[in-house]
Amino acid sequence: MKTVGTKSQQQASPMPTAKYRPFLDVNPIELPDRTWPTMRITKAPRWLSTDLRDGNQALIEPMDPARKRQMFDLLIELGYKEIEVGFPAASATDYDFVRHLIEDNAIPDDVTISALTQSREDLIHRTIDSLQGAKNATVHLYNATAPTFRDIVFRADRDATRELAVSGTREVLAYAEKVLDDDTIFGYQYSPEIFVDTELDFALEVCEAVMDVWQPDAGREIIINLPATVERTTPNVYADQIEWMSRNLSRREFVCLSVHPHNDRGTAVASAELAVMAGADRIEGCLFGQGERTGNVDLLTLGMNLLSQGVDPEIDFSHVDHIRRVVEQCTRMDVHPRHPYGGDLVYTAFSGSHQDAIGKGMARRERDVAAASGDETAVPWDVPYLPVDPHDLGRTYEAIVRVNSQSGKGGVAYLMSSTRHLELPRRLQIELSQIVQRHSEAGGGEITAESLWQIFADEYLPAATAKGLKPWGRFALRGTTVTTADDGEHATLTVNLKDGRADRVLAATGNGPIDAFVGALSQIGIEVHVLDFAEHALSTGGDATAAAYIEAEVDGQVLWGVGIDPSITTASFKAIISAVNRAVRDASLH
Amino acid sequence: MKTVGTKSQQQASPMPTAKYRPFLDVNPIELPDRTWPTMRITKAPRWLSTDLRDGNQALIEPMDPARKRQMFDLLIELGYKEIEVGFPAASATDYDFVRHLIEDNAIPDDVTISALTQSREDLIHRTIDSLQGAKNATVHLYNATAPTFRDIVFRADRDATRELAVSGTREVLAYAEKVLDDDTIFGYQYSPEIFVDTELDFALEVCEAVMDVWQPDAGREIIINLPATVERTTPNVYADQIEWMSRNLSRREFVCLSVHPHNDRGTAVASAELAVMAGADRIEGCLFGQGERTGNVDLLTLGMNLLSQGVDPEIDFSHVDHIRRVVEQCTRMDVHPRHPYGGDLVYTAFSGSHQDAIGKGMARRERDVAAASGDETAVPWDVPYLPVDPHDLGRTYEAIVRVNSQSGKGGVAYLMSSTRHLELPRRLQIELSQIVQRHSEAGGGEITAESLWQIFADEYLPAATAKGLKPWGRFALRGTTVTTADDGEHATLTVNLKDGRADRVLAATGNGPIDAFVGALSQIGIEVHVLDFAEHALSTGGDATAAAYIEAEVDGQVLWGVGIDPSITTASFKAIISAVNRAVRDASLH
Repeated sequence: MKTVGTKSQQQASPMPTAKYRPFLDVNPIELPDRTWPTMRITKAPRWLSTDLRDGNQALIEPMDPARKRQMFDLLIELGYKEIEVGFPAASATDYDFVRHLIEDNAIPDDVTISALTQSREDLIHRTIDSLQGAKNATVHLYNATAPTFRDIVFRADRDATRELAVSGTREVLAYAEKVLDDDTIFGYQYSPEIFVDTELDFALEVCEAVMDVWQPDAGREIIINLPATVERTTPNVYADQIEWMSRNLSRREFVCLSVHPHNDRGTAVASAELAVMAGADRIEGCLFGQGERTGNVDLLTLGMNLLSQGVDPEIDFSHVDHIRRVVEQCTRMDVHPRHPYGGDLVYTAFSGSHQDAIGKGMARRERDVAAASGDETAVPWDVPYLPVDPHDLGRTYEAIVRVNSQSGKGGVAYLMSSTRHLELPRRLQIELSQIVQRHSEAGGGEITAESLWQIFADEYLPAATAKGLKPWGRFALRGTTVTTADDGEHATLTVNLKDGRADRVLAATGNGPIDAFVGALSQIGIEVHVLDFAEHALSTGGDATAAAYIEAEVDGQVLWGVGIDPSITTASFKAIISAVNRAVRDASLH
Repeated sequence: MKTVGTKSQQQASPMPTAKYRPFLDVNPIELPDRTWPTMRITKAPRWLSTDLRDGNQALIEPMDPARKRQMFDLLIELGYKEIEVGFPAASATDYDFVRHLIEDNAIPDDVTISALTQSREDLIHRTIDSLQGAKNATVHLYNATAPTFRDIVFRADRDATRELAVSGTREVLAYAEKVLDDDTIFGYQYSPEIFVDTELDFALEVCEAVMDVWQPDAGREIIINLPATVERTTPNVYADQIEWMSRNLSRREFVCLSVHPHNDRGTAVASAELAVMAGADRIEGCLFGQGERTGNVDLLTLGMNLLSQGVDPEIDFSHVDHIRRVVEQCTRMDVHPRHPYGGDLVYTAFSGSHQDAIGKGMARRERDVAAASGDETAVPWDVPYLPVDPHDLGRTYEAIVRVNSQSGKGGVAYLMSSTRHLELPRRLQIELSQIVQRHSEAGGGEITAESLWQIFADEYLPAATAKGLKPWGRFALRGTTVTTADDGEHATLTVNLKDGRADRVLAATGNGPIDAFVGALSQIGIEVHVLDFAEHALSTGGDATAAAYIEAEVDGQVLWGVGIDPSITTASFKAIISAVNRAVRDASLH
């Protein structure tokens, strides 16, 4: 053998490097005496959720009024106190939604809604009109201050740009005084857009001119928001920009300094955190990072990062799966399996050495907590590979053992797909892996495709014929009749059900067949809440048998059910029965 | 109206804050004279891809040998020169894969493979055995140095921990000298695990002891890798730790200082970038951030972040969709639509004001490039809302205009789902939105569900009866016969095809029906490469009609096709015909 000296081992790529300029060449900043790298975050910043504005505007399917309301109610439930609810002057649906919130008394007294507007008299009037009757309302005015926008988009010089911010602020103040109730507590937020690309001295000049109009004072804060609408460089530079502004803004104690980071470079969370160290008081973001392009900064990650350091996020993340389901339903966007704190895979361990270390860490913690008379908080969390306790978010740690087939091709999901044409949803894959693991620990040895199928069929398809297995389960489906009304919006169902040794005939109506079926079960005391649903055709030759997968909460337990049938409707009924039978069995074991 | 003073508007949450300790209380570091905040990254670091090791070990479906090879070949094609290929002592499949790479001459002369091992004689021997015959090979040895691991997992004190690193290094050296060819260029990498949780002085002590054995020198580098195996605090602290190590390591000029950040707090990219500013020479990561839990740092984002600053990433990202497809096929994990640089939605603009600004920026750029005699690189990229030119990655900018139905419920995909039960894949939604936009700009006004269906049926289902539309398209499917062999692994197809006014009968075989159908088309000069495929049952009452969606490259064009049929196989054939007809029509327009 030989050895090698240190060197750069790569070579030039064909990427057009010369086409791009370093950000710091275009927007230089000198701050050698910066203090943020030594700061620690010891208190949660103020949060503003822009899920209903920036988040919503970037969805392929923007939320309809019902989904918007669902999102708003979630934000309230979690504890957000500042919520940007739309851009009412730009969108009639946003205007109507703001009115709906106010007229329906949906906004708690300690919550402030805000509305975005550009700096034009008619838009400002319509924005403030939308807010009439609110107890706490903020107008958020922005105009473009960055040179590219001044030059290319608006053809306005510095003076005209500053004057637009000033005249807009003046109009907001005058019109709000005129039309808002004495009872409305009114706030004002100004954003120079795009702050990170604006010359610092000019951004400061515009903010000062705006403040000269608003006259911030002890009883009269102003929110100065400095957006990284497009993330342009490493997060330390944003921190320098924020510290510079924080030092140089006059009337600083009456300013709420706010940041609005996007994630174009994958560093929005870091930008927000370093900005808080640099003096920011408030962060604007979205749950699970919705928003234009790569999204706004993720409020869940920011909040949980604080908790992991012993800082109260001042937001309740104790049911993260619930939060995720509502967000997925509202936005019609899935959360990635590796999303920090909320993804399907983030509390799993695949590696044997990780599982061993976690097991030992959990055991020691259990002993220590017992020694502390069961006081969880008396023992600092310190379990290898788990930066936070999954239980604090309503999740569980999952040790996933590989299941290999004899061919050496890996994995439960692969075998179910390749031999049975079943494409299991990811959370069902995890559930099944753990069931298979219990069987293989009991039986020992490798899993074959056939034994995997028997485990699966016995667990999820008890009515199916799996060699040598006795069918079990309290319920079985005998027959159903579904009638859908002409409006297509509700269904009437009659279901013939085996229940133990009895036969039952139930009838119910619902929004659709599944809803009606859940209603029928409720009549006999089985409460099912469908959390997730997936279905597909089985591509075996030309036939079109369907598989349905349902994740359901049954009497407080969350589990999956599976149904296979030529009719997709019947398959979904069978999937519900599958979940219910599994839940009833587990409950009877306790 | 009233106004309000600055205050904290939130309240305590029920989260168990007292259970967690600030990282800096446990692992304090003082570095007031840190220099990294003033540094700029002006050259790409060395990259190590651990897609085949850390990435693979965290997949629900680990890669089989064929997919591993596909991933390896992709990494080579992109320009990665250091690739961790597995943990051969822990896994027979990893061992076999390393042997396969070497014996198949799959490793170019300028590429170094590395293999991970724990510090145990038998494991070290097996690891080095697996590397025999390689031209450039590195052994990567790690042991647990962090106090939690020493105390709970291994019950070893500092001395025993250091000795384990030293004895392992000695064994690697001795056994490699013994069994490796004279021609093998052998490298060594050591990782104190988990570095970020290890007392800094002890991490340094262990690394120095390891170096005393290895004796790094001018012709003999050592790679010291300092993993953030679990991300534990803000990225500036990792940078401080790296700068401290970089300053204090002896023989620094012969050390390649490497980092290995995970993404538990969503800041792995920032951690890697600040670490390079702090002195790191090398980054370990995965494409699209695979890896345990939240994943390793994403190599694509890191590389493209460099390009955006005019620094050559030394990796070819010019066909990001191709990279993404291979990674998705190999890992069976989807890339999130908002993933930086590679997600479906990151070059879209939904907001009218964004579209206006981008349009003006693009127009100016076009003029400026023309004035520079067409030299793209002579004009610095500066288009609002697009941090990089999508074309540099083989992508395009997409302006997506909202399509509202009369009910006020939004969006093309929603209408297709609610009125026609079609669940369009996201990229097809984007494609369709743009087609609808062209129609609505031509016709003006709002889109109804019925007019949307006509546009869709005319574009994708030319053979379908859509009111008032003339069917078009060169090809139509008349009939097919598919025979699947007993082994289930290949299919024979006879297809009767209308081609203009002629009828054709084609026969072909393939791995499956779709493969055979593509083969049949190839016989008449139509080259189709299937890139993505989705199907589902249409849940309209009890019938089981299926919809198939195929994204295909047809003679160099990438587009979607749709097929609807009671047989899922026929539906997929129809989808291919749909894509081919669209491609042929577009080509004939040029």
